[in-house]
Amino acid sequence: MPDLLNEHACFGGVQRFHSFDSQAIGLPMRYSVYLPPGAGDKPLPVLFYLAGLTCTEETFMIKAGAQRVAAEEGIILVAPDTSPRGAGVPGETDNWDFGVGAGFYVDAVQEPWSRHYRMYSHILELRQLVLDTLPADPARVGIFGHSMGGLGALMLALRNPDLFRSVSAFAPIAAPMRCPWGRKAFGGYLGPDEALWRQYDATELMAGMQGAPFPGGILIDQGLADKFLAEQLYPEAFEAACLGVGQPLTLRRHAGYDHGYYFISTFVEDHLRFHRRVLG
Amino acid sequence: MPDLLNEHACFGGVQRFHSFDSQAIGLPMRYSVYLPPGAGDKPLPVLFYLAGLTCTEETFMIKAGAQRVAAEEGIILVAPDTSPRGAGVPGETDNWDFGVGAGFYVDAVQEPWSRHYRMYSHILELRQLVLDTLPADPARVGIFGHSMGGLGALMLALRNPDLFRSVSAFAPIAAPMRCPWGRKAFGGYLGPDEALWRQYDATELMAGMQGAPFPGGILIDQGLADKFLAEQLYPEAFEAACLGVGQPLTLRRHAGYDHGYYFISTFVEDHLRFHRRVLG
Repeated sequence: MPDLLNEHACFGGVQRFHSFDSQAIGLPMRYSVYLPPGAGDKPLPVLFYLAGLTCTEETFMIKAGAQRVAAEEGIILVAPDTSPRGAGVPGETDNWDFGVGAGFYVDAVQEPWSRHYRMYSHILELRQLVLDTLPADPARVGIFGHSMGGLGALMLALRNPDLFRSVSAFAPIAAPMRCPWGRKAFGGYLGPDEALWRQYDATELMAGMQGAPFPGGILIDQGLADKFLAEQLYPEAFEAACLGVGQPLTLRRHAGYDHGYYFISTFVEDHLRFHRRVLG
Repeated sequence: MPDLLNEHACFGGVQRFHSFDSQAIGLPMRYSVYLPPGAGDKPLPVLFYLAGLTCTEETFMIKAGAQRVAAEEGIILVAPDTSPRGAGVPGETDNWDFGVGAGFYVDAVQEPWSRHYRMYSHILELRQLVLDTLPADPARVGIFGHSMGGLGALMLALRNPDLFRSVSAFAPIAAPMRCPWGRKAFGGYLGPDEALWRQYDATELMAGMQGAPFPGGILIDQGLADKFLAEQLYPEAFEAACLGVGQPLTLRRHAGYDHGYYFISTFVEDHLRFHRRVLG
């Protein structure tokens, strides 16, 4: 069972921070939960948010302003951390885009990362923990995220459409095999085998689909003043892959918006209402 | 003229961070501004937010989720820092409740603080800077704040009701002369003369009024799970002072809410709409 680290009343519900002994990671892992008012009366939809590079389980809950809409819509929000903490891998804090705070939601196979850097399995484990411990409806679980976490959300949903029934993203690293962040992370965690990389690349996964995995659509918001857009994100590659398999995609390009939480907070309400509608 | 440090599109408007050479402080000071969409067409109301202990000009803009409502209501938001930075006073970073991050919005008269720790004058100077550089209506300037900043807002408004035409607070240090935070700060910055302390104590100022300075009312929100409530805040003293002079006060006590930004974000919409209504 998870430990409760602290909790705070928020929009009539409660914001909680937990820690538990992660079997996937082999270390204690933190996560945050927002429970809307009235939680407990009936099973509620759950929305997982995967954060980007350098973030923690706190970032989204502090900065996005999503609790107001979650309270209105009756959605449970869950945010994991972005990597193991305290794994003790030499050099794990030397880079902001690899190692601590940069787990990329993959299960590493390369030594010395493979022992603890297993964020893919961690998200699935956390999904089950949430279903086991909260008044959550297993048939109404969605996932979204930002940047590295936008990739994680798309990738996890495409590989597990039965577990995550709705998906959206803010400025995702949509085609990681084409960009420096993705090639560095996949090379480091996964080694040279690019067949394995494809299992974690949202555009490659979508391109390999037989038909549309999410007939209710996918929502992506992208700022056009995002300094990472040209080199790291490639939403147009994901868009082309969706077109190729008939996957409905709403890709909104927003003039003037950058890569940060002022952008996310502006559009987070649309994402929660999108998930609520798809999940029913 | 202020330097623009960075800016971010947000809810159709723009979030800016500035620095300028403060005459009041004698050092560069930072502040943040949110300009709602359409700013520039006509003079807009302005709302100053004074933050609490340990905060900066960034805290409110990141955590409170106020830009959404400011965009809707057409309000300019301004948040100053909470103390000088880089004053070089020996020991100024040794305490979280005195010195850096804890200016208490007073003009210090005690050496060595008196040279730079002049936050009262800084807020008035910043008000004028905002009026000089933004499409702001000088007749519609309000002020609010949290904890130490809730005190600052009440105190500045009571001393300058012609400059700040509406005032509200979250969990203010309402009677600082009665509490450890206030006595420590006033003793350190102002010295032993309690007549001077009274000029910075919201309850003492209200008690000394001839009639109601804010006939449109004052709004205060207070969480009942706030761990500082019993020892540091004394909203009931301010309430009694308002009653004594006929000042309308809406003091809302919220079961379960604590002292942090999950509390503030829950009720910030009410505060912006309150100021908009009072300011017209």
